[in-house]
Amino acid sequence: MADDPPADLHKSPPDRLEEVQTRVWLRILSLYGEIFARLNRVLTAESGVSLAKFDVLAQLDRFSEGLSLGRLSQNLKVTGGNVSGLVQRLSADGLITREMSRADRRSFVVRLTPKGASVFAAARAAHQRELSACFRNVPASDLDVVLQALNGLAGQVHSKSTPVTE
Amino acid sequence: MADDPPADLHKSPPDRLEEVQTRVWLRILSLYGEIFARLNRVLTAESGVSLAKFDVLAQLDRFSEGLSLGRLSQNLKVTGGNVSGLVQRLSADGLITREMSRADRRSFVVRLTPKGASVFAAARAAHQRELSACFRNVPASDLDVVLQALNGLAGQVHSKSTPVTE
Repeated sequence: MADDPPADLHKSPPDRLEEVQTRVWLRILSLYGEIFARLNRVLTAESGVSLAKFDVLAQLDRFSEGLSLGRLSQNLKVTGGNVSGLVQRLSADGLITREMSRADRRSFVVRLTPKGASVFAAARAAHQRELSACFRNVPASDLDVVLQALNGLAGQVHSKSTPVTE
Repeated sequence: MADDPPADLHKSPPDRLEEVQTRVWLRILSLYGEIFARLNRVLTAESGVSLAKFDVLAQLDRFSEGLSLGRLSQNLKVTGGNVSGLVQRLSADGLITREMSRADRRSFVVRLTPKGASVFAAARAAHQRELSACFRNVPASDLDVVLQALNGLAGQVHSKSTPVTE
């Protein structure tokens, strides 16, 4: 369980609040870093696709009719990364196709190839296996508690930044 | 609060467990992505240092006697990134110095300059302000629940990967 010392209760409330905010962020950061690195390593070794490429393939697997480049970038906003670079490399590897849209000749539609679909299926199995290995010591009831807490947090994260004075 | 549909209770237990594991990971991923992007944007605009550079400065701020490059890389393992590239750029900006170690002439010791310390102080204030803005709608008691849940998870994440068949 936790090895953090308890937050100092003698601090004034605003200081203590800031301390807890920082700890929550550092925990998210370290969990992300550890799990990301493991998934990325296993995926790359077993299926030859990085986690960033995997995320592109996963999007295209959900949309068998294909996705415009713009929509794909939007859906991948969270993981960031250079979507057009990823698309170029996946296309060079024969895992996806990029064709001009029939509806809008200025835009490109991206689709999985049969090879891409089979690479993705194998990668998805490796991804799930490694994720389950990460969490193998976490009882289902604990995971539910974490999920509920994170869902609550995600719903409450304020979406507007403080104004930046430039 | 949550906009996720409840996990399907009619699924077999292993399927449901995998689904919850995936949801926990996707939540960590999206919270990380959103908060990282905001902190990075505000830091870069207000103090001219990216979040990756900020993490280097924060390490050096904790060790006023300086840190060896190797130790610095180790401490920054979580956030990854190219530490030697960051060190080079921070040094070119006059925020840190890099000197040969007196104890071991093969290794370099990195330290904050006075300019680096003052840039870091401003950046730290901006970092805390933006983090507090992210969490401004989250009551302290909810943050405690999240922190406890994440601490528990971090303590239980199994540190050994599944073997990779190469």
